[in-house]
Amino acid sequence: MATYKAPLREIEFVLNDVLNVEQLSKLPGFEDATPDTLLGLVEEAAKLVEGQIAPLNASGDAQGCKISNGVVTVPDGLAEAYKLYWQAGWVSLCNPTEYNGQGLPFTLSKVVDEVLCGGNVAFALYPGLTMGCFEAIHATASEEIKNTYLPKLGTGEWTGTMCITEPHAGSDVGAAKTKATPNGDGSYAIEGGKIFITSGEHEMAENIIHFVLARLPDSPPGVKGLSTFVVPKYMVNADGTLGARNKLIASAIEHKMGINASCTCVMQFDGAQGWMVGAPNTGIQNMFVMMNLARILVGLQGLGLCELATQNAIRYAQERKQGKAFNGKEQIIEHADVRRMLLQMKATTEGARVLAYETGMYVDIAKNHPDAAVREEAQDWVDLNTPLTKSWCTDSAVEMGSMAVQVYGGHGFIKEHGVEQIVRDAKILCLYEGTNGIQAMDLVRRKLMMNGGRLPKRFFAKVRDAIKSASADYDFIAKPLAATIDDLEATTQWIQQSYKTTPDDAAFGCVDFQRAFCLVYLGFNWLRMAQAAANHADASLRQSKRVTAEFFAQRMLSQVGALLSNVRNPAVEMMQLDAANF
Amino acid sequence: MATYKAPLREIEFVLNDVLNVEQLSKLPGFEDATPDTLLGLVEEAAKLVEGQIAPLNASGDAQGCKISNGVVTVPDGLAEAYKLYWQAGWVSLCNPTEYNGQGLPFTLSKVVDEVLCGGNVAFALYPGLTMGCFEAIHATASEEIKNTYLPKLGTGEWTGTMCITEPHAGSDVGAAKTKATPNGDGSYAIEGGKIFITSGEHEMAENIIHFVLARLPDSPPGVKGLSTFVVPKYMVNADGTLGARNKLIASAIEHKMGINASCTCVMQFDGAQGWMVGAPNTGIQNMFVMMNLARILVGLQGLGLCELATQNAIRYAQERKQGKAFNGKEQIIEHADVRRMLLQMKATTEGARVLAYETGMYVDIAKNHPDAAVREEAQDWVDLNTPLTKSWCTDSAVEMGSMAVQVYGGHGFIKEHGVEQIVRDAKILCLYEGTNGIQAMDLVRRKLMMNGGRLPKRFFAKVRDAIKSASADYDFIAKPLAATIDDLEATTQWIQQSYKTTPDDAAFGCVDFQRAFCLVYLGFNWLRMAQAAANHADASLRQSKRVTAEFFAQRMLSQVGALLSNVRNPAVEMMQLDAANF
Repeated sequence: MATYKAPLREIEFVLNDVLNVEQLSKLPGFEDATPDTLLGLVEEAAKLVEGQIAPLNASGDAQGCKISNGVVTVPDGLAEAYKLYWQAGWVSLCNPTEYNGQGLPFTLSKVVDEVLCGGNVAFALYPGLTMGCFEAIHATASEEIKNTYLPKLGTGEWTGTMCITEPHAGSDVGAAKTKATPNGDGSYAIEGGKIFITSGEHEMAENIIHFVLARLPDSPPGVKGLSTFVVPKYMVNADGTLGARNKLIASAIEHKMGINASCTCVMQFDGAQGWMVGAPNTGIQNMFVMMNLARILVGLQGLGLCELATQNAIRYAQERKQGKAFNGKEQIIEHADVRRMLLQMKATTEGARVLAYETGMYVDIAKNHPDAAVREEAQDWVDLNTPLTKSWCTDSAVEMGSMAVQVYGGHGFIKEHGVEQIVRDAKILCLYEGTNGIQAMDLVRRKLMMNGGRLPKRFFAKVRDAIKSASADYDFIAKPLAATIDDLEATTQWIQQSYKTTPDDAAFGCVDFQRAFCLVYLGFNWLRMAQAAANHADASLRQSKRVTAEFFAQRMLSQVGALLSNVRNPAVEMMQLDAANF
Repeated sequence: MATYKAPLREIEFVLNDVLNVEQLSKLPGFEDATPDTLLGLVEEAAKLVEGQIAPLNASGDAQGCKISNGVVTVPDGLAEAYKLYWQAGWVSLCNPTEYNGQGLPFTLSKVVDEVLCGGNVAFALYPGLTMGCFEAIHATASEEIKNTYLPKLGTGEWTGTMCITEPHAGSDVGAAKTKATPNGDGSYAIEGGKIFITSGEHEMAENIIHFVLARLPDSPPGVKGLSTFVVPKYMVNADGTLGARNKLIASAIEHKMGINASCTCVMQFDGAQGWMVGAPNTGIQNMFVMMNLARILVGLQGLGLCELATQNAIRYAQERKQGKAFNGKEQIIEHADVRRMLLQMKATTEGARVLAYETGMYVDIAKNHPDAAVREEAQDWVDLNTPLTKSWCTDSAVEMGSMAVQVYGGHGFIKEHGVEQIVRDAKILCLYEGTNGIQAMDLVRRKLMMNGGRLPKRFFAKVRDAIKSASADYDFIAKPLAATIDDLEATTQWIQQSYKTTPDDAAFGCVDFQRAFCLVYLGFNWLRMAQAAANHADASLRQSKRVTAEFFAQRMLSQVGALLSNVRNPAVEMMQLDAANF
C-alpha cells in the first residue's frame, strides 16, 4: 500500500528559504499570515490528510462510484471525510471573510492542495471544484446571487461544479449547444447535456451549485455567444432553506482509468431554472476567471502525485533488498540505475514545488499588493507561469508514477502496492482544464505575445540576475543555465517572428518549447535551492539538495538544447502530409 | 472501443522492401518459407486475431480472472478463442516438425506475435509462455522427457509456464529458495512458493507444464546453485494419458494494473513430483535459453501495443472534429500539435518494427545458416539487439499508449474508448523478463564488452556503410545519423574504459545510453525505410515514409547528443549521497 506523509520539511524549505513567504505577511489584509502561522496550518492539514483522507485513497479507487436512478453513491468513508474536511475550514481558507472565508493567502490554500492531492487526489476534486465555482460566482454575480450561494459554497457545506464540456465541445468550448431561454421572471430555463462533470451529483452535501455555460436564444455562434448561469440542484428559498429539486439529473457516470472515487457525471438539464451571472455573451471570460486558477490547482494536483510517487519509491528502495550493488550493499537504492531514477524523481518533484508555490505567491501579490506596478508584474508572472505549472506538474505526475512502478519492479504492477494507481490517477491531469497541448498553445500564442513580449523578457532578466549574483560555488548549474537562457530567448524570438507568417511552425513545436521553458525554470529553481540549502542547519537537506541540483544540471537541463532545436525546425513538410496518408 | 487491424501493408513493406525476407527462404530447411508464403500466413493470422481474439480484449480486461479453491476462471470467450488459436497451428509455427511443429522461421512467429499482441496482449501470454517452456525443455531435456511433453506442448494443446520469481527473488534470481529433493527414483520433490507465474493455473488446457527453477540439497548458494525441473500439473502416464494431479496449487492470483485477462498466479509446490532437465546447477543457463528469446517476444508485445495505440490515435484524429486548424479544416489531425503526436507515434512504432523483425531474422540466420561465420555474426546481432528490442518497444508502448490517450483528450481517459487500457497493459512489459534497467545493464556490462567489443563495432560499421552508400537525397537523415554514430562510438569507448575502474558510472548512465543506442538504430531504420519507400508503387506510403523519416531525423534523433552527454558524466557524487538523505 502506498502511504503518504506530507513533506513538511520540503514545504518549509521552499516557503521560507527559497521563496521568502514572509513577504506575504507584508501585504494588506495578510498581516496574520506569518510563516509560522502558515506552516502551523499546513501541519494541521497534514494531520487530517494523513489520518483520515489518505487512508481512503486505495479503497476509493477499488470501490469507485455507483449510479442508480440518478442517485450517485461515492465510496465508503468519503462523505464522512468530506464533512470533517469542510467543517475544519479547509475549503474556506482563502475565501473572503464576508462569505464565511478566512481571508488567508491563496498560496496557503495551494500548499494545502498539494498535501490533500498527495493523500487522495480523487477526494480533492470535491473541494477543488467547489472552490472554482465559488471563484466564478464571486467574480461575476450580483450581490443577491452571491448572498444566496456563496456563504455555504464558500465553506464547502454545499459543493460546486463547472458545467462546460459537451460531447462535441471539449477543447472547442465554443461549439457548446446547451440553451438558456428566458423564463420572463429574470431566470432562465437551461436545456441540454453536459459531460465530464466532476462532482456533478452525489449525496455528500445538501446542495450542489452548477456553474453552467449555455447559449442565449439570440446569441452569436462560437465562443462569443456563450453566457454563464448559476443552476442549483435544489432551489434556495429566500430564507436560505432548500426548496424543490431543480430539473436536472445525472444520467450516467463515466468509468475511468483513474480518480475513481471522484464521480464524473453526464448531466442532463431539462429546463432547469438558472440565473445568468455576468453580462450576456461574456461566458468565456467568466469561465476563465475560474479556469486560470483551476489550471494552477491542477498543477498542484500533479505536484501532490509527484510527491506521492517520489516518497514511496524512495522508501521502497531504502528497504527492498535485491542482489548486491557494486558497493556491496543490498538495498536497491545502492544500485546506480535505481538511484538515477530516484534522483530524477526528486529533481522533478522538488523543482516543480518551487514553480507551483511561486505561482501561487504571485497570485496573492497580483491581487493584494498596494503598488499597481508590482501587481502588474505579478500578474505577468501568473500569466506566464500558469501553463508552465499546469503542464510540467501534470506531465511529470504521469512520468513519476510510471517511474515509481519501475522502481518497485514487478511488484509495482500489482494493485496492492498502490503505485500503479498514481499513473492512472495522474493521466487526467494532462487532459482536463485544457490539455497540455492547449497549455502549450496558450504559452506560444498568448503568453509570449502579450504586451509586446514582456512576459518572457521578465523571465530572462530575472534568471540572468540570479546567475550573475551567484558565486563560483554554483557554476555547476549557473553556467549551463546561462546557456539555456540564451537559447530559450533566441527560440522565443524565432517563435514571435515565425508566428506572424507561419503559425503552424510554432504550433508544431509548442509542446517541446513548453517543456524546454519548464526545464529552464526548474534550472532557476535548482540554482536557488542549491543556494538556500548551502547554509541550512539540516545536514541531510544540505547534502540532498546539492547532489540533486548537480543531477538536474548534468542530466536534465541537457535536454533543453535538443528540444529548442526541434522547435526551430519549420513544420511545412509535416503539415503537408495528407491526412489520409498517415 | 479501440479496434485493431493488422498493419499488413507495413508488415509487407518491412519484410520485403526493407529487410529482404526472401533471404530466409535460402536457408536450409526454410525453402518453402518464401515471402508470399510468409505474408499469406500473416494474413490468415490477422483474420483470426481481428475476428475472434481482438474483440475479447476489452471484455477480458473488464472481467479479469477469478480464483476459487485453486481453480482459476479466465474471462468469457478466452478458452474458445485459445482452442481456435492452437488448433489452427499458430502456436507450433516455428517448432521443429518432430514435435508436431511446422518448422517455419522464428521471424514469422514474431510477426504473428506482433499481430496477436496488437489484438490482445493478455491473451497472447498463454501461447507466449507455452512457446518459452517448449524452447527451454527442448534445449535441455532428455529424449524421454521431450517425447513425453513436447508433442502436446508444441502444439499448444498443453500450456506451459516459467516458474522463476519468488517474493524475495525477483531481479535477483539467485536468491531463490525453492527446494528440489531427490525421490530416489530419478524424480524430485519440489517444495516452495513462486510468484508472478503467468498462466500458472487455468482450465483452458488439459495439462500445464511448469518449468521450475529450484535448488538441490547440496548446491552452492546464489545463481550457481540453481537447477531446472519439469513439473506437470497432471502426471503423464507412459501411454500419454493423464494420471494423478501433482502436488501443486495456485494459492492466489494477483490484481494488476493491466493484462487482466492473463492469470498471474502465486504457485505453491508442496512436494510436487518433477524431473530435472539439464545438468545440476546449470539452471540459470537453462533458463536463459528461454529468457533471451522471451525478451525478444516481449519486444514484440510492446510493438503490438505501439501499433494499436498509433492506429487508433490516427483513426480518431482523422474523424474527430474540434475547432478549426489554421488551414480551416476541422479534423483534429489538421492541428499541428496533434499531427506532431501522430508523427512521433508513427516514427516510433514503424522504426521499432524494423528493429524487432530484423532481430527475429538474425535468430533464424544464427540458427540455420550453413556458414559458421555468418551464424556467428548473426548471433552477435541477436545478442546486441535483444536488450534494444525489449527496452525500446516496451518503453515506447507505455509512451504511445499515453500519447494515444492525449490525442483522444478527455475521452481517452474513459474506459469505453479503449486506449487507456494500452497504458495499463503496456507497463508490465517494462518490468518482466528483466526490467528495462536490467536490459540496459546487460547492454553495457555484457554486450558492449563481449568478444573484445565486437558487437558495437559491427553496428557502427554497418550503419556507416549504409550512410556512405546513400545518395544525397537522404542527406536529411544520413548526415545527422553520421554525427550520432560518432558520438555513440565515443561514448561506447568511454563506457568500455570507465567500466574497468568505476562501474557505477556506466551503470548510472546505462538507461540513457540504451535509449540513445535505440534512437541511433531507429535512425538507421528510417534511412533504410526512406530509401525503400522512394520508388514504392504506393504513393501514400511514399509520402508517409518520407515525411515520417524527416520527422524522425529532425525531432527525435536530436535527443541522442544530450543522452550521451549525460552518460559521460561521472556518477561519483550521485553515488555518495547517503541513502538516508534522499
